[in-house]
Amino acid sequence: MNTMLLIAMAGVVALIFVAVFYWLVSRESPGTPRMQEIASFIREGANAYLRRQFQTISYFIVGLAALLLIVMWPRWQIAFGFVVGALLAQLAIFIGMNAATRANVRTTQAATTSPGKALVLAFRGGGVMGLTIVAFNLLGIALLSVFFGVNPQHPENVSLLVGFGFGASLSALFAQVGGGIYTKAADVGADLVGKIEARIPEDDPRNPGVIADLVGDNVGDVAGRGADLFESGSDNLVATMIVGLAFIPQYGWAAVLFPLISRAIGAIGAVIGVLAVREAKGRSRITSLNIGFFTTAIFSLLAFYALGQWVMRDIRIFYCLSLGLACALGTALIVQYYTGIDQKPVREIAEASQSGPAITLMSGFSWGMESAVLPKIMIALANLAAYYIMGGGIAGFFGIAAATLGITEMKGIIMAGDAFGPIVDNAGGIAEMAGLSQEVTESADVLDAAGNITKAITKGYSMSCALMTSVVILFAYLVEATRLQGIEYTQINDVIINLAHPLNIAAIMIGTTIPFLFTAQTVRAVEKTAFKMIEEIRRQFREIPGLLEGNAKPDYSRCVDISTRNALREMVAPTVFGVIFPIAVGFTLGVWALASYLIGVKIIGATLAMFMFNSGGAWDNAKKYIEAGHLGGKGTETHAASVIGDTFGDPLKDVAGPSLHILIKLQNILAINLLPLFIAYSIKWP
Amino acid sequence: MNTMLLIAMAGVVALIFVAVFYWLVSRESPGTPRMQEIASFIREGANAYLRRQFQTISYFIVGLAALLLIVMWPRWQIAFGFVVGALLAQLAIFIGMNAATRANVRTTQAATTSPGKALVLAFRGGGVMGLTIVAFNLLGIALLSVFFGVNPQHPENVSLLVGFGFGASLSALFAQVGGGIYTKAADVGADLVGKIEARIPEDDPRNPGVIADLVGDNVGDVAGRGADLFESGSDNLVATMIVGLAFIPQYGWAAVLFPLISRAIGAIGAVIGVLAVREAKGRSRITSLNIGFFTTAIFSLLAFYALGQWVMRDIRIFYCLSLGLACALGTALIVQYYTGIDQKPVREIAEASQSGPAITLMSGFSWGMESAVLPKIMIALANLAAYYIMGGGIAGFFGIAAATLGITEMKGIIMAGDAFGPIVDNAGGIAEMAGLSQEVTESADVLDAAGNITKAITKGYSMSCALMTSVVILFAYLVEATRLQGIEYTQINDVIINLAHPLNIAAIMIGTTIPFLFTAQTVRAVEKTAFKMIEEIRRQFREIPGLLEGNAKPDYSRCVDISTRNALREMVAPTVFGVIFPIAVGFTLGVWALASYLIGVKIIGATLAMFMFNSGGAWDNAKKYIEAGHLGGKGTETHAASVIGDTFGDPLKDVAGPSLHILIKLQNILAINLLPLFIAYSIKWP
Repeated sequence: MNTMLLIAMAGVVALIFVAVFYWLVSRESPGTPRMQEIASFIREGANAYLRRQFQTISYFIVGLAALLLIVMWPRWQIAFGFVVGALLAQLAIFIGMNAATRANVRTTQAATTSPGKALVLAFRGGGVMGLTIVAFNLLGIALLSVFFGVNPQHPENVSLLVGFGFGASLSALFAQVGGGIYTKAADVGADLVGKIEARIPEDDPRNPGVIADLVGDNVGDVAGRGADLFESGSDNLVATMIVGLAFIPQYGWAAVLFPLISRAIGAIGAVIGVLAVREAKGRSRITSLNIGFFTTAIFSLLAFYALGQWVMRDIRIFYCLSLGLACALGTALIVQYYTGIDQKPVREIAEASQSGPAITLMSGFSWGMESAVLPKIMIALANLAAYYIMGGGIAGFFGIAAATLGITEMKGIIMAGDAFGPIVDNAGGIAEMAGLSQEVTESADVLDAAGNITKAITKGYSMSCALMTSVVILFAYLVEATRLQGIEYTQINDVIINLAHPLNIAAIMIGTTIPFLFTAQTVRAVEKTAFKMIEEIRRQFREIPGLLEGNAKPDYSRCVDISTRNALREMVAPTVFGVIFPIAVGFTLGVWALASYLIGVKIIGATLAMFMFNSGGAWDNAKKYIEAGHLGGKGTETHAASVIGDTFGDPLKDVAGPSLHILIKLQNILAINLLPLFIAYSIKWP
Repeated sequence: MNTMLLIAMAGVVALIFVAVFYWLVSRESPGTPRMQEIASFIREGANAYLRRQFQTISYFIVGLAALLLIVMWPRWQIAFGFVVGALLAQLAIFIGMNAATRANVRTTQAATTSPGKALVLAFRGGGVMGLTIVAFNLLGIALLSVFFGVNPQHPENVSLLVGFGFGASLSALFAQVGGGIYTKAADVGADLVGKIEARIPEDDPRNPGVIADLVGDNVGDVAGRGADLFESGSDNLVATMIVGLAFIPQYGWAAVLFPLISRAIGAIGAVIGVLAVREAKGRSRITSLNIGFFTTAIFSLLAFYALGQWVMRDIRIFYCLSLGLACALGTALIVQYYTGIDQKPVREIAEASQSGPAITLMSGFSWGMESAVLPKIMIALANLAAYYIMGGGIAGFFGIAAATLGITEMKGIIMAGDAFGPIVDNAGGIAEMAGLSQEVTESADVLDAAGNITKAITKGYSMSCALMTSVVILFAYLVEATRLQGIEYTQINDVIINLAHPLNIAAIMIGTTIPFLFTAQTVRAVEKTAFKMIEEIRRQFREIPGLLEGNAKPDYSRCVDISTRNALREMVAPTVFGVIFPIAVGFTLGVWALASYLIGVKIIGATLAMFMFNSGGAWDNAKKYIEAGHLGGKGTETHAASVIGDTFGDPLKDVAGPSLHILIKLQNILAINLLPLFIAYSIKWP
């Protein structure tokens, strides 16, 4: 118990730095009154949305908590943990988004004096989100463990934590789907009518959708992605602790503590990494960011060595951890190839735009499809390597869990880089809207380009994390399923999910359809909301006299309202579907077929998400490549074709893709939560 | 042996009707000299392409046959069967396409006098392809069986037939990929430059790409799809015969004969169905076609009853066969909902076009994603039902095999309807090019609309067939793998592909990436070829004086040449990749992990293909809906947006999707071929 509290101290340290960075950001000047006014619009819009989103989510939290309490009785801890997980997720994104909506305008202001300072400021603003997530993961689980009596005498109590994971996942899915729909509908609407039809620049104050668009960056990219990483961190911790249970005979109590210690290393690593991003003469933006990432990576590597060698007393665990870290790097490289503006795929897509939008689409579609291949094969082989490094058998699971922790521990710094993206994006928008000098706008644009890279890397990274994590959650499911049924699980074939059995074939076939259904729903939600947004923006341009000439003000709030209302309405169905399916399969096809179903969901979900991220990112950058003056530049038919690709890619890369991450873990952790019910009440097929 | 020859007689009957229909079509008038000239361009282009395609394929046939002979020695029958399968596939599409390129112009001519007669003529032209395929399937396998000594004393010789399946699959993959690239590049190029840029009507003789486009209908839609159905018929027969092997103790020799008898029923059913499509006063086009389909279905149902009751002496087999037949119907209904011009999805996509192409794309993408869900769940449940109807266990496999035969036996008539599509499409094109009266063009258009429905149904149907067949091929793999290793396979858990084992998880993860890689390659091939086609057509419009005014002739042959050369070049890489991957996995991860890999390929491949078919079809029909005068009709921005959706959807629905069908079976049948090598030489992991 003392160890547990000791580990939790790393979370406290991270929280202290959250306060420090928040203060460092807040004390900077927020600029001119006009800038402050715009920033306050954004902040109020974002906060108003988050409040209403929380309201909607809270009905589900209360309802599901009551249900869990009843069906799980007397294991009340499941429901309690569920509520804590769900609330902590919401609190984390609230804190992180608040920092982001303060950092944006201050970054604009800083850019008027020093671009280097602007970078550091924006990164620290993003660091608040990164550190909050890691700290809450760690503190939430460590304190609940103490509270639930998880200790060397009762290691099996660790399975009471699954409610926490489910709460975090459910909360995250709502936040990602809702925030995603919000931001993309606003973005697509503002761009299509503003840039294409009215031919005014991006973020122009005459565009009625511009505030909704800037709010969207915060509620979608900051809050949504934050919730995503919070949930994958939570699920990961809970799952690896449960898997650790199976290894108590081999490593003792350390097997269960191991994930928490890794997370503590991640928390400290993130603090050091954010601190390492500093201003220096003659250092390029991307170099500054890279220094942050590599500082964290090197610190982690050293700490992992110590962890493997002296805590676990098994150097092979260090190898597995490092393998995970290498996968993070590998994913980043692959993503950079497929979406990088100076790479072959993006350039080919841009060239295809010369033959019109249909050819652009084919090109981006095919590069995106291809981009899903290598990362997944890499992870498949890394898992296999980790498995055999530990000698295979059930012990090999521990190796895979360690590799997963290795990749996950970059989370804090990666999330800081990710939140950095929308902050500088917002900063550029504020500069444009406030009519600041071209110098400032350009300096913001340079930051924005760096932000696009960090955002692309985050997506690939989160997908690799999600895929590795989802394998470990599957093991956690198997460990729990055997423990609850009193099956001994010490040999690899003690548990059999036989793919030669038609029951499991049917289950995996059904599982593979779920990501398609979910993608259909989320993309359609964006399409419908964007449709309404387009109608409204067209109406304002048509009906408000003098708007295009700059003599009248648009009605920003109606656009904000359309995004808000529709996002809240449309986020419910996909989430509810995501919850119902595994329950239905569990009761009708049974515990082992459900595992097969879950594998179906995750293997297809991950590939689909990867395709959607990368094709979306590549289309985006092909457009940017043309806008940089290649192939005729802005205003040409080639550019128009590339804009269509980019717009189509938006909901894929920012809504459907990231939501799929969460879905694949949500369904698995939910299944673990309900295992006792499935074991007791499911239909038993021969 | 006598029984075998008796069954083969059904194939002879079908072949006789092939000759009859060919003669009935040929004796009709081919119209005016101008019509004959155009038709001869098309026929020569199509034949020239098919000849060159055959040349390219023959290198691979010879090379692989030699390789198979060496590595499989002394089982020379594998290599021999491989050559026979590959050649029969090519011969079948040659005959079928020849009939189609005769029927097209005669259909145009018939339409000048009687639309009803035109329909019957076109359908009989398509019937040649449908019957040839079924007849060759049956004759090829029955005669090889006799030749290889497959008889009650040596039922295990049935596994010598796997070479035939592999030959058919390889041949088909080349033909579908090559033909698909050819037709879509020509179609996209001709449409984009002709309809959008030069604003001339479809199939206008001034368009340099028009002949290539009309040739493409034949080499892609007739030959490509024919090859596809030939291979799925072959693989299906071989696989179900091998699965039957495992049931000799229960049903005796009839277990192995059963698939052949079903196919004989299918052959006779197809003949009757084609004959039933007749001209009658006041009968609508689609009713005439439906009468053909339902005649076949009812005949099959009755014959299945006789087969179950009196031959197999197990009425449950009749239930399973009927279940398969019901799935064919179910798929057709679902596909009609998602792609039908008067249904909600298509209308919503058309409405979305009002907000521009990006929104059209999102809409079609999401409906397409959704459309993959129901058919797959239906098939999963049908498989499960068939399994439990037979009482589960290993006997359940026989039920699944029977259900698969039930769905497959509609093949002949469905293929006739499918080949009917491009024939009437061509007929309309010839009418347009020959400048026939508007009445004739309109009457051809009505037939074309009916053809679009039969084409859409064929695709959904083939996918359902492919998915069900792929499950049976998997069982055939398991049966062979156990037989060769001397494992007794009488209980369901005698064979275990444990999805809880990281080796199998890695294999299935790798498998799921393959359809993405393959889709990337095929779509990119179309994109690249279309890009060149567009350049060439633009060049001709620019450089040939008086072309647009109709005072000069375009150079059709250069466009035909571009399609031909590029299709032949681009078809090689995806096919070769498709062959290499399962071999690599088999040797490195072993026999059971390869099964897991194959499941990964098929479950994701089928879903992806279904999504691509239906979104492509829905975009196509949304465009047609607008062209019919809705939402402003032709020439509006809304129409332009819908054309972009349609064009993007083309390579998805006509190249990548149908090729995926073949790929998922090819890899599996190839794996069965090489099983002895994998068993002997693969790495053995703990």
